[in-house]
Amino acid sequence: MNTGALGRLVLVPNTLDLGTTPTPIQQVLSAGVLQRAAGLSHWVVENGKASRAFLKRVGEFTPLGTPLQAIDMRELPRPRKGAPNAVVEPREWQALLAPALAGHDVGLLSDAGLPAVADPGAALVAAAHELGLIVEPLPGPSSLTLALAASGLNGQRFAFEGYLPQLADERAVRVKELEARSRREGQTQLVIETPYRNAALLAALVQLLQPNTRLSVACGLTSPGGWCRTWPVARWRQPGAVALPTMPPDLPAVFMWLA
Amino acid sequence: MNTGALGRLVLVPNTLDLGTTPTPIQQVLSAGVLQRAAGLSHWVVENGKASRAFLKRVGEFTPLGTPLQAIDMRELPRPRKGAPNAVVEPREWQALLAPALAGHDVGLLSDAGLPAVADPGAALVAAAHELGLIVEPLPGPSSLTLALAASGLNGQRFAFEGYLPQLADERAVRVKELEARSRREGQTQLVIETPYRNAALLAALVQLLQPNTRLSVACGLTSPGGWCRTWPVARWRQPGAVALPTMPPDLPAVFMWLA
Repeated sequence: MNTGALGRLVLVPNTLDLGTTPTPIQQVLSAGVLQRAAGLSHWVVENGKASRAFLKRVGEFTPLGTPLQAIDMRELPRPRKGAPNAVVEPREWQALLAPALAGHDVGLLSDAGLPAVADPGAALVAAAHELGLIVEPLPGPSSLTLALAASGLNGQRFAFEGYLPQLADERAVRVKELEARSRREGQTQLVIETPYRNAALLAALVQLLQPNTRLSVACGLTSPGGWCRTWPVARWRQPGAVALPTMPPDLPAVFMWLA
Repeated sequence: MNTGALGRLVLVPNTLDLGTTPTPIQQVLSAGVLQRAAGLSHWVVENGKASRAFLKRVGEFTPLGTPLQAIDMRELPRPRKGAPNAVVEPREWQALLAPALAGHDVGLLSDAGLPAVADPGAALVAAAHELGLIVEPLPGPSSLTLALAASGLNGQRFAFEGYLPQLADERAVRVKELEARSRREGQTQLVIETPYRNAALLAALVQLLQPNTRLSVACGLTSPGGWCRTWPVARWRQPGAVALPTMPPDLPAVFMWLA
């Protein structure tokens, strides 16, 4: 707490084991990050329950400065039903950041990896910049750059597309557009999918991409069963290839290709 | 060392303080990563001298399994003078990975952040996949995703372009292309520059981009003097804006915009 001055918005990384067996937290996050997180008494989070579980894990490593029950924890607004793109009013962001305006450092946490990267939070960070708050990102892993490093595909030029369209026809058009751009610009393409649809997306990519395009899948990285495979599409098409290794329906995966 | 079996290629993250005052290593890297790095006796690195300094910092935290002088450390091939795009022969990669083929885990390290992301190493990782070696990326920060999180710009869709063309005319064309794509696809654009040219690149972007485009600069993140500012270009154009905060000629920076 910095009385008299503005607090900061502190971006706190999470582990990458969402949906699977928890990794020991000190395997993934630095002692410095754990200590900084343990000292924060005000939070804005993607999910309150998951964030309390996170702080419990932090507290096992280094005692929390404020007891868990006394921590001020607010959830990011969720997309409204029937209006997923509804704009959140600026005053709602300002309300979430009120503790920082009152001098407290405020932690921002998502359910996995870095907040605001392939995860909610960017609008809150933008509001913090507009309010003149200092934004302090703590170092931690992002599943995207970790997967890219592991793929061996071009890490000097890459693009993250988020989720591909759900409809098969629209998805095919977009995959072919991104494959053409990858060939033209030497740009690695990254996409993600809801875990239970991972196997279906892999099958679609293996069918849609050109035989010489290199396709990489990184699954559950930093977890004990995590793996990454990079093969030309022609090899993914060989019988048995897609079955080995398996695509568990609960593990997050990143799909990447370079034409 | 795994006698009888193949070793792994272990991607080891570095800190992000290249060119500035070293941050305490346990502020940035996890205890698990430091322990794994301390146990590796074979390395392929971007730069031998910097990597020995890294291992010395690791050793202050947790004793190295092999004395520094006895560690087998090989450097990645550098672009050949006059032939920067010369292809390295597959057998050269295989030679670098020989210890892994003989059963030793081999660490891959670059001078900052994750190897193979905005840094050398991807071709070695690709060779490891081709040889059937397991690639194990250890969790750590990438300056790109850290900057993106701090920017408050769109983290659900973004592209890293690497370096812009040096020639002013070519650079202007490419910046305008990427701004148009950003507007069309809602894609945040990320570029980097050699640190001593950071101030010149910022001036060029402020001039080239549209007034409503949001431009973000993240400089020296995770270092004590690190900062990130996100403003509409119109605000960057106000007198004094670019001078505050300063662009030190030795700190790495990431430039981002969203139209």
